[in-house]
Amino acid sequence: MLDEKVKEPIMKTLVVVSHPKIETSNTQQFLKESLVGLDEVSWYHLDAQKDFDSTVERERIMSANRIVFQFPLYWYSAPASLKRWLDEVWTKQVVYDENGGLLRGKTLGLVVSFSQPERDYQLGGREQFSLSELLTPYRALAAKTGLSLLAPLTISQFAYMSEAAQQALLVRYQQYLTLDHPSRFNERAQWFINQLRTYRDDTTGDLVADQLQDQQDNLERFQQTLAELKRGEAE
Amino acid sequence: MLDEKVKEPIMKTLVVVSHPKIETSNTQQFLKESLVGLDEVSWYHLDAQKDFDSTVERERIMSANRIVFQFPLYWYSAPASLKRWLDEVWTKQVVYDENGGLLRGKTLGLVVSFSQPERDYQLGGREQFSLSELLTPYRALAAKTGLSLLAPLTISQFAYMSEAAQQALLVRYQQYLTLDHPSRFNERAQWFINQLRTYRDDTTGDLVADQLQDQQDNLERFQQTLAELKRGEAE
Repeated sequence: MLDEKVKEPIMKTLVVVSHPKIETSNTQQFLKESLVGLDEVSWYHLDAQKDFDSTVERERIMSANRIVFQFPLYWYSAPASLKRWLDEVWTKQVVYDENGGLLRGKTLGLVVSFSQPERDYQLGGREQFSLSELLTPYRALAAKTGLSLLAPLTISQFAYMSEAAQQALLVRYQQYLTLDHPSRFNERAQWFINQLRTYRDDTTGDLVADQLQDQQDNLERFQQTLAELKRGEAE
Repeated sequence: MLDEKVKEPIMKTLVVVSHPKIETSNTQQFLKESLVGLDEVSWYHLDAQKDFDSTVERERIMSANRIVFQFPLYWYSAPASLKRWLDEVWTKQVVYDENGGLLRGKTLGLVVSFSQPERDYQLGGREQFSLSELLTPYRALAAKTGLSLLAPLTISQFAYMSEAAQQALLVRYQQYLTLDHPSRFNERAQWFINQLRTYRDDTTGDLVADQLQDQQDNLERFQQTLAELKRGEAE
């Protein structure tokens, strides 16, 4: 059963936020509030920093196993403050060692918001270029430093989101910051079960959690059988 | 003959330089010195600016017919100062009007320097990504604002360049800033002829210029004949 498996070390996540007008950004305020209770996630707003102390910055980076660049898309990349931090802090001393990278083994996430519909970012769309194309410099940075890159979490037109869509975003965002593989169904299902168990004062929550756990276990067994069938080990 | 054709309006070029340590950059010092005598080219170093006055910046941009972003590649894009200028100055008021762009009809050039061999920037090369891929955000910016994008002028490993290679770079750079189509052979040939005519105190220069001009005229006629042949208008 999933909840009996050996606990992996807790994910420590550094959210590096680049936004010059953060106090007027509903998206960023919403994301910040979504972090309440996530003790292992730290929020770091670059535009509020005047200068960077390289020792402090190095420790900040090294203490996380996941680094997330979070920003609105300005002229098809992050605002200047993220670039300034990268230019000044991500020096050879920080990102390389003799074995080719102090960051190797960590993951890099991108949380990117924009005011257009997501379909605008494609061949023939209004913006003509896909986000994957536009974000190539981050892909190259991850490849160079040995960071393993997560698929971006994109937030399109937050201003027009229904409350339900905002709730879904909150869940996706928390999962993105804390799960080993935020796009894997199993991990996301287990996350829901854990969430429900956390709110024990609500008995319904517990019942729903049990039911979800059963379903998840069944699903696991079903997947195992399928895998065995494929290997020809069962009939 | 080429030198009898109607003179087009002189190219006015704004070189926008982004480099946080320009005084220690031999590349940038060399490029700056290459501009001596080019009255219609202005050099604008962003990192020296504290704040931007949007009216002044707007006039600066609008008075040029060519804008050139000149920078070393830091983490696969321009240093932070270019991004800051774009974020703060290239607002809707500057880059759009009712007809979709005050910049329409102007050209955008990119002068990009880096310390690796150019072959590193390709599939399977040490950097894995081509410069065309990495520079996609500028392509998207040009498309959005109606700027017509020139192929980048790349400067690879300036520190190791021979004097002859530096001379060739100077010529390429001056052509890049001043010619309508810096990659067209005809325009580049005419540029050489004009250069030689400028140094009239040297009689040899004049003779060489005459000879080059004759060759260029012959070439033009030959090309015309070819074109007519293709159209089936001559036999």
